[in-house]
Amino acid sequence: MTEPFDAVEVIAAKRDRAELTDDQIDWVVDAYTRGAVADEQMAALAMAILLNGMSRREIARWTSAMVASGSRLDWSDVGRPTTDKHSTGGVGDKITLPLAPTVAACGAAVPQLSGRGLGHTGGTLDKLESIPGFRAALTPAAMHAQLKSVGAMVCAATEDIAPADKKLYALRDVTGTVEAIPLIASSIMSKKIAEGTGALVLDVKVGSGAFMKDVGSARELARTMVDLGTDAGVRTVALLTNMQTPLGLTAGNALEVREAVEVLSGGGPEDVVELTVTLAREMLAAAGLEGGRDPADALSDGAAGGVWRAVVISQGGDPGAPPPAAAETHPVLARANGVVTELDALAIGVAAWRLGAGRARKEDPVHAAAGVELHVKPGAVVRGGDPLLTLHTDEPAPFERALAALEGAVEIAPEGSRPDLLPLVIERVT
Amino acid sequence: MTEPFDAVEVIAAKRDRAELTDDQIDWVVDAYTRGAVADEQMAALAMAILLNGMSRREIARWTSAMVASGSRLDWSDVGRPTTDKHSTGGVGDKITLPLAPTVAACGAAVPQLSGRGLGHTGGTLDKLESIPGFRAALTPAAMHAQLKSVGAMVCAATEDIAPADKKLYALRDVTGTVEAIPLIASSIMSKKIAEGTGALVLDVKVGSGAFMKDVGSARELARTMVDLGTDAGVRTVALLTNMQTPLGLTAGNALEVREAVEVLSGGGPEDVVELTVTLAREMLAAAGLEGGRDPADALSDGAAGGVWRAVVISQGGDPGAPPPAAAETHPVLARANGVVTELDALAIGVAAWRLGAGRARKEDPVHAAAGVELHVKPGAVVRGGDPLLTLHTDEPAPFERALAALEGAVEIAPEGSRPDLLPLVIERVT
Repeated sequence: MTEPFDAVEVIAAKRDRAELTDDQIDWVVDAYTRGAVADEQMAALAMAILLNGMSRREIARWTSAMVASGSRLDWSDVGRPTTDKHSTGGVGDKITLPLAPTVAACGAAVPQLSGRGLGHTGGTLDKLESIPGFRAALTPAAMHAQLKSVGAMVCAATEDIAPADKKLYALRDVTGTVEAIPLIASSIMSKKIAEGTGALVLDVKVGSGAFMKDVGSARELARTMVDLGTDAGVRTVALLTNMQTPLGLTAGNALEVREAVEVLSGGGPEDVVELTVTLAREMLAAAGLEGGRDPADALSDGAAGGVWRAVVISQGGDPGAPPPAAAETHPVLARANGVVTELDALAIGVAAWRLGAGRARKEDPVHAAAGVELHVKPGAVVRGGDPLLTLHTDEPAPFERALAALEGAVEIAPEGSRPDLLPLVIERVT
Repeated sequence: MTEPFDAVEVIAAKRDRAELTDDQIDWVVDAYTRGAVADEQMAALAMAILLNGMSRREIARWTSAMVASGSRLDWSDVGRPTTDKHSTGGVGDKITLPLAPTVAACGAAVPQLSGRGLGHTGGTLDKLESIPGFRAALTPAAMHAQLKSVGAMVCAATEDIAPADKKLYALRDVTGTVEAIPLIASSIMSKKIAEGTGALVLDVKVGSGAFMKDVGSARELARTMVDLGTDAGVRTVALLTNMQTPLGLTAGNALEVREAVEVLSGGGPEDVVELTVTLAREMLAAAGLEGGRDPADALSDGAAGGVWRAVVISQGGDPGAPPPAAAETHPVLARANGVVTELDALAIGVAAWRLGAGRARKEDPVHAAAGVELHVKPGAVVRGGDPLLTLHTDEPAPFERALAALEGAVEIAPEGSRPDLLPLVIERVT
């Protein structure tokens, strides 16, 4: 076929800081998906976008072109308003696990298409797959049936959800072009728009363990994504939340499932409960369901736990099976008396990754039982020799590299000191 | 094999405006040449280089890494100092044809590895191949024999001359990354350094028909290339020369050979003679041969013409054969009385290209007889109806598109006006 544009002209336009036209964007995304624009051409364009930026109009058009590369799901038969949450990724971020059942217990449907982890941040599907028998792949018919009967699902995206994004994401990963806000925002939002949710709450993480290290860039990403959702008819709100230190007391797949089950049983770490309840209230409000059952009640009265078990069973898992346990553990002890003022999220994420909880390449396996357990949080008073962390792994070999990652990760200051932490919820962007 | 670097880290360094280390540059050029760095990775890196630049040290190292990807020729057995010229490309630029024999007639050896044209600027090998029988491909043994016996050769580069550049140039051509001064300079200079010439004169064209449209960017390119040559032990000088209007009175392969032969017979257009003599003197001076036979004398006394015929015969051509003639011609006439104040080089180059003298893709053939003949130069006084140009082609079909390219290319101002032209030689950079 004759192409209406020349790839070099489109690349040169962005290289020379021009705005791409709607027609150019529609063409280049479509032509790349079908192979008429080559990987090396898209790589050059992605680098030009990273360095020269995109206008709000360009980002919106790019996103809708990626949505249009596949199909958009429709949940109008489910009989409840749909609402979902997306986190930009952090260390110990198991929030989807208690959150989706809680929101379903309060009357909304949660059609979450989720992903696997890459690098030091975990993936929700990796965590769920540590439950014996759990299936991340559902057919569209099974998704509809589960949403109607149970009110929530957490499964892998099918091949026809934004295929342009799948191809482009893999390319960005090997070409140093992941770190472009227009491309990050359009990647996330094209998948969420194609997912068909009516409302969306974005949890944009800020801090050492997150992709966005500072509030300014996180705010820019949040603003861009909220605009994209709104423009596409999805009621979208974003929270910037703290990722200086891990969420909860666990980082690792089975370890995090265990903690999520504690929260769903009315217990669990304070920060995980607080973020679950906050995000659940936002999701319900965005779905037009404020004033109904309160998420905190759904957690304490067992309703959320009931939905959790129904979701796990519906996706083939055994909610009562004992979680995989690590063959080897190694303690990290406090070297002095004092107050824990820092527990660095990135260092703990990298340690968990090196212990086997994460993957370096997308084809790598993950170890269900590997990870890091925290015995303290910032602000805790400790004495020399007290346990700070326990490392979990299936074989002792990675301990050394995990301990190297943890060098300097825990700071203990003289008694009376206070950690200098941002609040858990930093800012709300609508 | 285990690679010492990760391509994404090297790309990210340049993306984030860091200087690449010598080891990173050596590795990325070598790894790209052997396929361990993928096309899409090099494309992203090339765009980052284009937008973020390179230091003098980085460009020098990049160039020597490209030289080291192949072999460097050695002419120490030839018995004369070697000297060469490279032009960045212009319309009607047939200067190599009279220049190489002239310089050889004055005592130096000219080991020119040359190229074919792409786009609106012609290639020297395309011009020479319009001579019946002429062979552009020579074996290394034939090159040595011809340089010893005749003193000049103009032939294609062999596969082992800067293979990294061959691969990178093809990639830049399809990824919008041709226009990067570090990459242009290292591409040209890696080939010339690998060619093994002891001295080099760069003819950096400036104006509408050239790659560099303004003196500032041409000066930057010239400065960068002179530094690269000097650092590599090649005595290098550059002239910035005018490419607002075509060189001489012809643009097209056989048409330009005919004009070159006129110059080699002591005639020909004034600007072609002037630039040939100027460049020849620079080449001889750079080779340490000033004060010997003067190039102007070698042209007028027939010595240069003798070397020309010897070169053509040595490369299989028949210097006495009639040049291919076009089947169809079409005149362009003056629309008014007045003075020609502009004869735009780009427009005439594009017209010649559309008539069949050039190629759009490197696998396209060129037509030997196609091109544009000029009957006037800027400053000429004309009367309405006087012939300005003659278009030559083998079939009448392209006349319309060639005439469209010429729209507005010739400006005729009232009598007494004077064209506003830069001098032929604008500046010298050493």
